[in-house]
Amino acid sequence: MRGQESPLLHVVLHEPEIPNNTGNIGRTCVATGCRLHLVHPLGFETSEKACRRAGLDYWPRLDVAEHADWAAYERDAAPGRVWLFSTKSRRSYFDADFRRGDHLVFGKETAGLPAGLLERHAGRVLVMPMVPGERSLNVATAVCAAVYEGVRQMLARGEMECDRAGRLTGAGECR
Amino acid sequence: MRGQESPLLHVVLHEPEIPNNTGNIGRTCVATGCRLHLVHPLGFETSEKACRRAGLDYWPRLDVAEHADWAAYERDAAPGRVWLFSTKSRRSYFDADFRRGDHLVFGKETAGLPAGLLERHAGRVLVMPMVPGERSLNVATAVCAAVYEGVRQMLARGEMECDRAGRLTGAGECR
Repeated sequence: MRGQESPLLHVVLHEPEIPNNTGNIGRTCVATGCRLHLVHPLGFETSEKACRRAGLDYWPRLDVAEHADWAAYERDAAPGRVWLFSTKSRRSYFDADFRRGDHLVFGKETAGLPAGLLERHAGRVLVMPMVPGERSLNVATAVCAAVYEGVRQMLARGEMECDRAGRLTGAGECR
Repeated sequence: MRGQESPLLHVVLHEPEIPNNTGNIGRTCVATGCRLHLVHPLGFETSEKACRRAGLDYWPRLDVAEHADWAAYERDAAPGRVWLFSTKSRRSYFDADFRRGDHLVFGKETAGLPAGLLERHAGRVLVMPMVPGERSLNVATAVCAAVYEGVRQMLARGEMECDRAGRLTGAGECR
């Protein structure tokens, strides 16, 4: 685990079920300087081969925190601003303003986020727009699109930079 | 297969190796009204369980074309504008202007796109910016981020709309 003082964004997975997805999401977090939060119960052991295989050799460089449940996450991570992703929302994630340190929350593969959580954070629930009749993306692909929309916005506002080598600078710690 | 007159974007996978990734990419294409092109040889059979399982019940609704090789793809798909994604580029994909009908090309998981192709399309090769020292994303997650950047740009230019239910309209055929 690589602890960062100021992660670009926080990616929060609520009770993820599929290790391959969590591995791929970990890889996105490493590539972009985000911290990953895993809210238990998980559908797998984080030591599981499939999780590490999807994360390849990136997993050891991942800044990851595990929380016993949602209450523990809220207590320990003290999220300032949360955005919840749900196919039940009508507000496009393109209309959100993502700022450094925001928490992007994604639900479990089979059921999404629980209704109680969505109600409690009404007004902060976002959807990735899709063509009529379609309602579903793989969660790992959705996370990557959401994180890079945050990256794009922060670049556009000059809060970080993309240098001439195509590298993000000012995203978390600079190594 | 669902043929569309005017796909939003074309996603082109050059010799993909991992069926689960192609399945997830197919799911992204279905959700966004994109056509998927698979350039052979593939590392799997498209009838393979893992491919269809990742694509779940979306696969039958996927607009997909298979091509024997790159030359056959260029001949049969007649791509107007191509964008190649490579970690070897220094040009951020945020600086590209994606237009309806553009082709977004991604290489195989283990090796990316061949040098010859990158040279032939120099000036149209894009990178997804990452923090220093990191150079890799899962291809299915990268495709989703790239496609949604295209969606964002087309929405911003008013070339399609996101209705009050969070649905993309004007993306491919409207059902």
